[in-house]
Amino acid sequence: MTTHLETRSTHRCFGGTQGFYQHFSEIIGLPMQFSVYQPPQAQQGSVPVLFFLAGLTCTEGTFMIKAGAQRMAAQLGIMLVSMDTSPRQTGIPGEAGDWELGSGAGFYLDATEAPWSKYFRMESYVTQELYQLILSHFPAEQNRVGIFGHSMGGHGALTLALRSPELYRSISAFAPIAAPQHCPWGQKAFSHYLGASRGTWYEHDATALIEAGYRLPALLIDQGLNDPFLAEQLQLDRFEAACRLHGQPLTIRRHDGYDHGYYFISTFMTDHLQHHYDQLSQL
Amino acid sequence: MTTHLETRSTHRCFGGTQGFYQHFSEIIGLPMQFSVYQPPQAQQGSVPVLFFLAGLTCTEGTFMIKAGAQRMAAQLGIMLVSMDTSPRQTGIPGEAGDWELGSGAGFYLDATEAPWSKYFRMESYVTQELYQLILSHFPAEQNRVGIFGHSMGGHGALTLALRSPELYRSISAFAPIAAPQHCPWGQKAFSHYLGASRGTWYEHDATALIEAGYRLPALLIDQGLNDPFLAEQLQLDRFEAACRLHGQPLTIRRHDGYDHGYYFISTFMTDHLQHHYDQLSQL
Repeated sequence: MTTHLETRSTHRCFGGTQGFYQHFSEIIGLPMQFSVYQPPQAQQGSVPVLFFLAGLTCTEGTFMIKAGAQRMAAQLGIMLVSMDTSPRQTGIPGEAGDWELGSGAGFYLDATEAPWSKYFRMESYVTQELYQLILSHFPAEQNRVGIFGHSMGGHGALTLALRSPELYRSISAFAPIAAPQHCPWGQKAFSHYLGASRGTWYEHDATALIEAGYRLPALLIDQGLNDPFLAEQLQLDRFEAACRLHGQPLTIRRHDGYDHGYYFISTFMTDHLQHHYDQLSQL
Repeated sequence: MTTHLETRSTHRCFGGTQGFYQHFSEIIGLPMQFSVYQPPQAQQGSVPVLFFLAGLTCTEGTFMIKAGAQRMAAQLGIMLVSMDTSPRQTGIPGEAGDWELGSGAGFYLDATEAPWSKYFRMESYVTQELYQLILSHFPAEQNRVGIFGHSMGGHGALTLALRSPELYRSISAFAPIAAPQHCPWGQKAFSHYLGASRGTWYEHDATALIEAGYRLPALLIDQGLNDPFLAEQLQLDRFEAACRLHGQPLTIRRHDGYDHGYYFISTFMTDHLQHHYDQLSQL
């Protein structure tokens, strides 16, 4: 597959390069946008790469603008990749106007229900097309790839890593939607994207996948205790219980006073990059 | 003066508190918004405080979201303050729609020309009302106050510090508009805010103030050499020449490849905070 990659902008940042790109996605059937931070070390050779999956309403820019991750990525020599959180301008009725569904709310799965199934194929996009594009167009080490994310993107990081363990060797999450079958955000998205019958919902629910025997490498999760979505939407206790019961290694750090946003994420970003660096260095 | 301070939101960040506030400004005659990052050390007592003045189109949020300054501010124990870049919703015809004038383009001066003079009084707002509000409502050390800024806000930091040296003990700037009398942005703003006759323009031009004998403490300026505004709008060489001729201590660092945005600013933020910390620690 020949990919035409349009560079929308590049910016020198901590000695490396922050870039924003667009390409026509064959899997989605529409243009998609993504962002890459190449650390200074990428000028000399391939480096480990981390995919960051953002949350509801975010774009490919959110993480690069708000998370403050480039400083530590430059220090450790890690490439960072983020991407838009859904297809855009699909023409699907109701696509826009509801921040929990459609635009900005792709939930990192392949929709099976019309009308969403035509374009909303974020799992295949992230794990196949974008993954291969990064490995072929950027100096990324193919055996040192990790994934992390926030909220809906934390759900994405967990489920994509559980479902494609061969692709991702290090995993972490900030305030993930950890049991989407059991929360309003997940139930709403899954009922539209996967159907109301719930037959395949468990395949995209991190807690259910752990219960079904899927496993991850050592996992780091940070969670703010002043997060207004924690009890109803994130269901982290449910995920933690499943991990304990089924022997999934897990470090959950709960932080007094921190909320759900990027002021929380940026505070613990250095620890996450170090976690991935350590995991990927063991390979 | 009793100030009613409305807290719009607060967020735990690097062990401190990121807050967004609104108050009715007596000087401007309208509500104004500003932001404060209180480092963890502020829970035990007063700390040094830095005012950051942002550039064209920015708001009180831009610096706090994009600059990645809180990490180092928490480490050094420095409070950070930023504010909106102009009055908003003044009802002045032509206020919006031109990013170089009116909303988002207050230029940190008190307009003397109608219709702008009624509300556009950013110099008095920043140096008097907001300054006093911060000292009285937050744990800020009154003798350890610094100022820095970017682009239009670099102009603001330089001119306000030159014009009110008793208020600011440490100064730095990122890519400042350093000789606004001689660039299109400055000429446009000054002609509307100060009048076409140019009689008082020099009073708000950092280069002219240096030439007129005003002085600053040791000054740090960072400048990207891939900044599209450098040659025409910023006029940094002109400022540098004036500083050399008149004995103003100045460190300018020019950086290959860096542009005008926050990826540039964030890269050198740590150095600026260290500069201010060192300057303010000598007092």
